Amino acid sequence: MSMVNEVLQSTIELDPLFSPRSIAVMGASENTNKIGYLQLKALIDGGFEGDIYPIHPKSKEIANLPCYSSVGDTPHEVDLAILCVGLNQVESCLIECGESGVKAAIVFASGYSEIGEEGIVAQNRLKEIAVQYNMRLIGPNCVGLLNTTNGLMGTFSPGLTLVPLGKRREVGFVTQSGAFGVLTYIAAAQHGLTFNYFVSVGNEVDVGFSDVIEYMLHDPKTKVASGYLEGEKNPEKLRMLAKYALEINKPMVIMKSGRSSAGSRAAASHTGSLAGADQIYDGFFKQAGIVRADDYDDIVSFSKLFLSNKIPTGRNTVIVTSSGGRGINETDRCESHGLTIHPLSDKIKSQIEKNIPSFASASNPIDLTAAASITHPELFIEPLKVLVNDPETDIIIFSEFPLHWDEHTPILQEFVELCKNTDKFILVTTFPLEGMSTPKSTQYLEDNGIPFVRGDMNPIRSLAKLVDYGEAYRKANVQEKHAPSNETPKKNIHHLLPKNQTLSESQSSEILSAYGIPTTKRAVATTEDQAVIFANEIGYPVVLKVDSPDIPHKTEVNGIRLNVQNDEDVRRAFQEIYKSAKEHCPTANIHGISIQQMLSEGVEVIVGVTNDPTFGPVIMFGLGGVFVEVFKDVSFRVAPITRQDAIDMMEELKGNQLLQGVRNKHAVDTEAIIDVLLKVSALIQDYADEIQEIDINPLIVYEDGIVAADALIITT
Amino acid sequence: MSMVNEVLQSTIELDPLFSPRSIAVMGASENTNKIGYLQLKALIDGGFEGDIYPIHPKSKEIANLPCYSSVGDTPHEVDLAILCVGLNQVESCLIECGESGVKAAIVFASGYSEIGEEGIVAQNRLKEIAVQYNMRLIGPNCVGLLNTTNGLMGTFSPGLTLVPLGKRREVGFVTQSGAFGVLTYIAAAQHGLTFNYFVSVGNEVDVGFSDVIEYMLHDPKTKVASGYLEGEKNPEKLRMLAKYALEINKPMVIMKSGRSSAGSRAAASHTGSLAGADQIYDGFFKQAGIVRADDYDDIVSFSKLFLSNKIPTGRNTVIVTSSGGRGINETDRCESHGLTIHPLSDKIKSQIEKNIPSFASASNPIDLTAAASITHPELFIEPLKVLVNDPETDIIIFSEFPLHWDEHTPILQEFVELCKNTDKFILVTTFPLEGMSTPKSTQYLEDNGIPFVRGDMNPIRSLAKLVDYGEAYRKANVQEKHAPSNETPKKNIHHLLPKNQTLSESQSSEILSAYGIPTTKRAVATTEDQAVIFANEIGYPVVLKVDSPDIPHKTEVNGIRLNVQNDEDVRRAFQEIYKSAKEHCPTANIHGISIQQMLSEGVEVIVGVTNDPTFGPVIMFGLGGVFVEVFKDVSFRVAPITRQDAIDMMEELKGNQLLQGVRNKHAVDTEAIIDVLLKVSALIQDYADEIQEIDINPLIVYEDGIVAADALIITT
Repeated sequence: MSMVNEVLQSTIELDPLFSPRSIAVMGASENTNKIGYLQLKALIDGGFEGDIYPIHPKSKEIANLPCYSSVGDTPHEVDLAILCVGLNQVESCLIECGESGVKAAIVFASGYSEIGEEGIVAQNRLKEIAVQYNMRLIGPNCVGLLNTTNGLMGTFSPGLTLVPLGKRREVGFVTQSGAFGVLTYIAAAQHGLTFNYFVSVGNEVDVGFSDVIEYMLHDPKTKVASGYLEGEKNPEKLRMLAKYALEINKPMVIMKSGRSSAGSRAAASHTGSLAGADQIYDGFFKQAGIVRADDYDDIVSFSKLFLSNKIPTGRNTVIVTSSGGRGINETDRCESHGLTIHPLSDKIKSQIEKNIPSFASASNPIDLTAAASITHPELFIEPLKVLVNDPETDIIIFSEFPLHWDEHTPILQEFVELCKNTDKFILVTTFPLEGMSTPKSTQYLEDNGIPFVRGDMNPIRSLAKLVDYGEAYRKANVQEKHAPSNETPKKNIHHLLPKNQTLSESQSSEILSAYGIPTTKRAVATTEDQAVIFANEIGYPVVLKVDSPDIPHKTEVNGIRLNVQNDEDVRRAFQEIYKSAKEHCPTANIHGISIQQMLSEGVEVIVGVTNDPTFGPVIMFGLGGVFVEVFKDVSFRVAPITRQDAIDMMEELKGNQLLQGVRNKHAVDTEAIIDVLLKVSALIQDYADEIQEIDINPLIVYEDGIVAADALIITT
Repeated sequence: MSMVNEVLQSTIELDPLFSPRSIAVMGASENTNKIGYLQLKALIDGGFEGDIYPIHPKSKEIANLPCYSSVGDTPHEVDLAILCVGLNQVESCLIECGESGVKAAIVFASGYSEIGEEGIVAQNRLKEIAVQYNMRLIGPNCVGLLNTTNGLMGTFSPGLTLVPLGKRREVGFVTQSGAFGVLTYIAAAQHGLTFNYFVSVGNEVDVGFSDVIEYMLHDPKTKVASGYLEGEKNPEKLRMLAKYALEINKPMVIMKSGRSSAGSRAAASHTGSLAGADQIYDGFFKQAGIVRADDYDDIVSFSKLFLSNKIPTGRNTVIVTSSGGRGINETDRCESHGLTIHPLSDKIKSQIEKNIPSFASASNPIDLTAAASITHPELFIEPLKVLVNDPETDIIIFSEFPLHWDEHTPILQEFVELCKNTDKFILVTTFPLEGMSTPKSTQYLEDNGIPFVRGDMNPIRSLAKLVDYGEAYRKANVQEKHAPSNETPKKNIHHLLPKNQTLSESQSSEILSAYGIPTTKRAVATTEDQAVIFANEIGYPVVLKVDSPDIPHKTEVNGIRLNVQNDEDVRRAFQEIYKSAKEHCPTANIHGISIQQMLSEGVEVIVGVTNDPTFGPVIMFGLGGVFVEVFKDVSFRVAPITRQDAIDMMEELKGNQLLQGVRNKHAVDTEAIIDVLLKVSALIQDYADEIQEIDINPLIVYEDGIVAADALIITT
């Protein structure tokens, strides 16, 4: 299916949910405390543009609207039904809707999969009804769905309906937690950002998190697709969507909770979904170019910054302040998030100095002193006049701003013109005090596309994420297209993969070899004489290792001899290892003793694959030995990976410098690492159903070349 | 001087600043825009308890107060003069004050050391005047001083004077940034915390940051001494004060800014190059038990938590929530700050389950579901009733709370009684929305000593710091008193410390040996024959190293041979090293070739000393090799250190596990590491004036024992 068709399909399918021509409120009520009343009131007060049909068995009129005894009785077709009924009425209501040709429904009721077995059964029945009648469902166990651009306030929650609407509505938001979602909606609105769509997906019996993201990506009114995620059920779809989002420059900004182990536990019990390990999600988000929001404030701040329609050209940042202390603090914040407070050139400094008082400082952070905040606010424009022409500056942050200026202040108009006509990214922020969310001057700035974000919303953290997003966007749209794709053809190794076994080192190595991954020269000897012959063929010194699928940890059975120098020592080592292995594991199936080339010293790394319950095969890369065990300095990506992913996996390591050369040592052969990562990716892609885990540990990298010194593969 | 005398002295000296009986406002003005008027108004509106004397050459009355033409004309003695005059009048005014016996003065004017040379000269004159007349000065270049308990609003800043005062005032605050201080004062007040003292110390011509901290520690009204610090001029005093503060359980909570500035310096030693200003401050704060505030919110939140008069008994935390999503998020937050969300016992869970709905969850985080937030707020008390009796729980966090309850709500009264009668630490927080800073129920909680901190103030981060503080307090008052002090007597090594030199390895090792630090068996040979004799005495295999003060990095001149096995090889190595060193450094003064014991493999660590411009000698500890170079996994403490400091330095390392044993390896001899750290501390304490830097790298630790394998000492 072409992308265009997909777009249409998805948009058409969810249109009855987001843009219904008519809505039936099932369980409408005259009792002002009931959901059935609150929902009706929300639609009326929200000014919903289509028809609203309260459904009630007896009432003639509720809230001044004519009532109908069933969905079938309404004068026109019903696009969307909102079920404000209790758990025990949901099924019959849904069937009634289906029979009457309703296209979509929202189910608020709880008591489904979140309560366990019994609820899962009931939820599956809802699913069947939806499939039978080709209805799209939101919920159950949800807070509802809003489209603030057409008055569709599909919710009973006063937390959502009582919030005044802001002017710009270009950010969509989907949430797996109703309560957290409502709070985020309110907080965003308080900071001047009203979501155009708000969707609480609840138990996701039909429409899931990624379905809503997809709708928002295809929707021309939406500029940012944001969400709160506990566990994605369809990561493959999310990945495809993320790729598309990068192509069309529409950021996906997602807060993934459950970072901690206990958090993951809670997530699992909360929605019934499986929250994958946080590190894997982190790798996946990076790989997919999804902006990972640390908290609700990132969703708000990032969106506000992105809606300015500028992306910073780099990380060089100038801070303009009226307080030395504030300047230092913002500097700390910028540098901790990876923005650079660069020294200004003498030329730029002297140009700024011309128009600011002598006691002010033109060094970055530029300190206009209390004079600017109290008596001479017009000073704030002076550094801007100069910096818009500084080729070394990418970002200008005003840590304070004259809040009393308004749209009639000429200097504010001039300020805005300067901002509009430069590619420098300009952010205005302030120290967070109550009651100053939208002072006059900042409202005027925002109306003109210059972002104002209060300090407590972590604007600098979000700004750094916008720079990262810009890089991901550029990579996806320029670099990656020209990068060679992974072209390892599929090898026939089916015969090397017995079912549900831990393979011996030599079996594992054979598989790696088949995919072109260099392994040690080796041969498995079953007799002393054979061992000597192999040792001479390979060349001294050699290593002897017990080869058995039943002994994955050879050191523990004293099953390895390093640096064996001659025939006599080979014979002795052969006997000793055999004896020791038999003593430790009397029942082990010993294939023989593997005679291997003794490798010279290099940098030890580890490449692994594990099968994640959410993401499937996931590739890991790290430095070997204690680095992986103690420092846990590893990176993850979901298979298959691209060349760029492989590069990112190396660069992400804290110990990357060890690969790039340190202490007079040369860089190692990073191309060889990339090659192994891509080959492992190809292998696991080709045999995902047959391989459970791979460990290449250690993989030894040299200045030139790479060798897998040991390997362990477990089949399914 | 005894501690008691010191207390009295310090309190008496600064009393005229904080508790003057009378204040003269120099430069009083009738112009309502002038500082001289604003200051007068602030004192009157603040309800200052003593006499206020406006000083003006001509006016008879300003703001309804009789005016005086000079300080000498006032009816009573003047304790405090506030100088609301311009730069050019400050000196004459100060002299006038001095002549009239004024005891203290506040100088707002700027144009002093902050503008450079000229200003420094002017500032020194102020200092001289203060000394001459025995006057205590605050400023210049400051925002002023407040004592909100007696109406002393010594400031012109409307930012400070217009803020409504809260009831409890037990936290003092001193700031090196006026503007940042004012903002913090306002923000704290908005969150229900009014500082009892606010001091902007400006350029600190007389009264400095630590002087104010000292006053607050001695002041019985102050329970927390907090501050904003850019750079301490008297760290030794701060350290003494911190020790005293821990003794009297009065936390010092200090935000130290400038984390990113003054990065590592170019230095000959590893230690010198790794010692960034911020890392040293960090070590110093930990060592001294000073709570390091990350931002203004930590000052506010930590203080509010501490004022509850409880310190958590441990890290085991239970979260009570009405939203699964919120529960997951707070769990993430707790675990990222080192609090443990522990699994509740079956017994506790079943007790909780008895009184909550079946669809709620009694697992930690305890999810009471939307039922609690909407229809059944009384559910919030149920888990508390049970948890106060759970021996495994230390902390209970309510991530939401029924905000509409008030002091007349019986269940809130019951809630408060439960909190009051348990040693569990209880924190009530909420998602941060505007306009809910002090809802009724939370005000009642706070009135009863139960802390409420809104989510945007990072209460969980501060809570974790309170746990750390509790540990530091216990260590300081129990453990450390019984710990053996460092008893290495001073050795006479003056003759081993030539002035301003980089010492050779053997010279450096001799100094370490003198202080009882094990070094390799070694002797410096000047001839081949001697080398052979030494090698046989030491025992094969040996190491040969060039010994020259001019060659600190021996590897670079190919000046080291490891694992030399016999006489013949010793001779050859001797010749080669000599030749290579001469070739690389023709002018180097070569003492000879050092013959040393070849050490067996162990764990390499590094111990170093550098002289910091602020703190003096600072001791560094880290893992050796790439760990220090790539991962920069090191810890710092200011000399002298205690045994506890040495233990903390090890435990602080990310790679500490390598010392405790990993991968079937035994733990190394950590007692030996502690011993070396304490001996190095003694050495640098005894010879602080003569030693600039020390690097012991590597220091090799075994399961039993330790040896300094190489050393570098630079003298002053």
